[in-house]
Amino acid sequence: MSRAFNFSAGPATLPEPVLLQAQSEMLDWHGVGASIVELSHRGPEFMGIAAEAEADLRRLVGIPDDYAVLFMQGGATTQQALIALNFANPRQVADYVISGHWGKTAIKQVKPYLDARVAATGEAGGFRGIPARASWQLSDDAAYVHVTANETIHGVEFRDVPDVGAVPLFADFSSSIASEPIDVSKYGLIYAGAQKNLGPVGISVVIVRRDLLDRAGQPRADIFDYRSHLKGESMLNTPPTWNWYLAGLVFKWMLAEGGVQEFAVRNARKSALLYSTIDGSGGFYRNEVDPAVRSRMNVPFFLHDEALDKPFLKEAAAAQLISLKGHRALGGMRASIYNAMPVEGVQALTAFMQDFQNRHG
Amino acid sequence: MSRAFNFSAGPATLPEPVLLQAQSEMLDWHGVGASIVELSHRGPEFMGIAAEAEADLRRLVGIPDDYAVLFMQGGATTQQALIALNFANPRQVADYVISGHWGKTAIKQVKPYLDARVAATGEAGGFRGIPARASWQLSDDAAYVHVTANETIHGVEFRDVPDVGAVPLFADFSSSIASEPIDVSKYGLIYAGAQKNLGPVGISVVIVRRDLLDRAGQPRADIFDYRSHLKGESMLNTPPTWNWYLAGLVFKWMLAEGGVQEFAVRNARKSALLYSTIDGSGGFYRNEVDPAVRSRMNVPFFLHDEALDKPFLKEAAAAQLISLKGHRALGGMRASIYNAMPVEGVQALTAFMQDFQNRHG
Repeated sequence: MSRAFNFSAGPATLPEPVLLQAQSEMLDWHGVGASIVELSHRGPEFMGIAAEAEADLRRLVGIPDDYAVLFMQGGATTQQALIALNFANPRQVADYVISGHWGKTAIKQVKPYLDARVAATGEAGGFRGIPARASWQLSDDAAYVHVTANETIHGVEFRDVPDVGAVPLFADFSSSIASEPIDVSKYGLIYAGAQKNLGPVGISVVIVRRDLLDRAGQPRADIFDYRSHLKGESMLNTPPTWNWYLAGLVFKWMLAEGGVQEFAVRNARKSALLYSTIDGSGGFYRNEVDPAVRSRMNVPFFLHDEALDKPFLKEAAAAQLISLKGHRALGGMRASIYNAMPVEGVQALTAFMQDFQNRHG
Repeated sequence: MSRAFNFSAGPATLPEPVLLQAQSEMLDWHGVGASIVELSHRGPEFMGIAAEAEADLRRLVGIPDDYAVLFMQGGATTQQALIALNFANPRQVADYVISGHWGKTAIKQVKPYLDARVAATGEAGGFRGIPARASWQLSDDAAYVHVTANETIHGVEFRDVPDVGAVPLFADFSSSIASEPIDVSKYGLIYAGAQKNLGPVGISVVIVRRDLLDRAGQPRADIFDYRSHLKGESMLNTPPTWNWYLAGLVFKWMLAEGGVQEFAVRNARKSALLYSTIDGSGGFYRNEVDPAVRSRMNVPFFLHDEALDKPFLKEAAAAQLISLKGHRALGGMRASIYNAMPVEGVQALTAFMQDFQNRHG
């Protein structure tokens, strides 16, 4: 098969030029006689790649100098645990706003370490919206307020930055970082697994306001200490060099394409096309999320008749549209349309959806 | 440059057939229209790869059924912390035998969690030997005894399995797993970063006797719980799929080459050739490790005159022999000669060393 349009939620499609470059450099990186995956992380080749990746990410996302950037292993879930260990005293309060599956995962990780409180949750409404800011029950003495900027499974996204006063706002941006401009200075900490908008699986990014690193936190191993990772330039132990390298190639590709301003335009166009196709299908397809907070990245949708799910997936795959099966928690379909998904991919998907409806409607 | 012989300590050289296969599959894995790095870890493609990798590793290393196998992120250092959280009660004693740099790292990680005791250390002797078993101060009530099977920096290796009685023996096998047959049943737990003998950086292997997972351990986040990872088939969160895939290719390559029996023969031959070249140089080169515990994997050596270090490295690189600079903690040179380093690589290195001595001796 030639390259399909791959709507996987993550690990997700990568820019083809990035894959081609990684392919061409697989046995010999820049004439050194070895692959980058075979070279020491302490050598000049990889140290250069790492420094460039940080500089490029800072430019791409617009990260102020008073924020540190860490490249970490363990995925976003590990960061969910580490934020409690690094930024909260034992049993201190932390407030969680739950807008979907990943918010629930986030609060689960910290319960052994602090007094994790649900400040607001959209669960009663099936996570089809985000609780109004006025309804949030926040604590003045909280270590932080945690939100999930975009919920990958439920397809719900914050469209603005909530004001939480003096308490630092921590946000899981795994599935929407670099998809549009954000004001980093409004957050205390941002973390993201790279396998959606930033590149390959196996590496995560943490962006943290430097003054927060002065907090004592809780007893923890050195390998769980963000300060140690910062001091060690994210090489406290052997980092996932190939993943970091591939993420760096994706950063360069995004900058060359026009940066987050350009991707904001493309992502708005892609998601508008897909939602209008769903909404204009007369009920053949449906998305149940409050239109005000629909995700531009992950579009869950259902066919009006579940019996059509299997034919839909089979015919889509035959049309080189793959990884459309919804998460098992929701069923139905899901199209993830991150930065690396071209407009043409969504055009092909919506054309297929209309054709499928014509044939099965 | 064509492919060099790369003596990096890790990330380390990979088998060329593995890199060629990964290269050929980089844009389209088995005709699915996407790279394996772009596909869901929950999809049939990757689930198949993951299951095969575990089965192949079990066959390769000889892992009994009463041992669980986990594929983990975070490197060996993260496992060093997690073993305390999973297998020791708060403040329980654990005994550490320190035979080099990585043993010191291991004990550092657990100090916040338990009563970590140095049962024996070779530090006074510059880590040029392993303290005799009779000298170890072991505690009857220890949660475990920890050893580093092979010290990557100091080039010191256990040549037999120490008898520690009823207390489970935990071992860091990062740099010697699958280099020769081992009796897994003599260990409670074995962990290893993959980036030396098992494949790419960014993934680690944990082999643990299943009954030990019944221990309560300490309060910890779900993501730090080995039981949860086992229940989640090492996909508790998104695993580093590409790294896992590449490790799986390395496992298949090792099995096809003849398995650990064959690599034991090759590794004995390679290390004997290198040590005999050093020992036969009349003091031009020297390795200071007790011959009884010299590592077959990592061979640190020094030139008789430090002023020759730079010319040695420069001329070696010109002869396509790279990554020979010693770790900054020791200086000098280090040749890491893991499974993927062919005998021809060590022959080329020793020929160069003799030639260099002839020209500079």
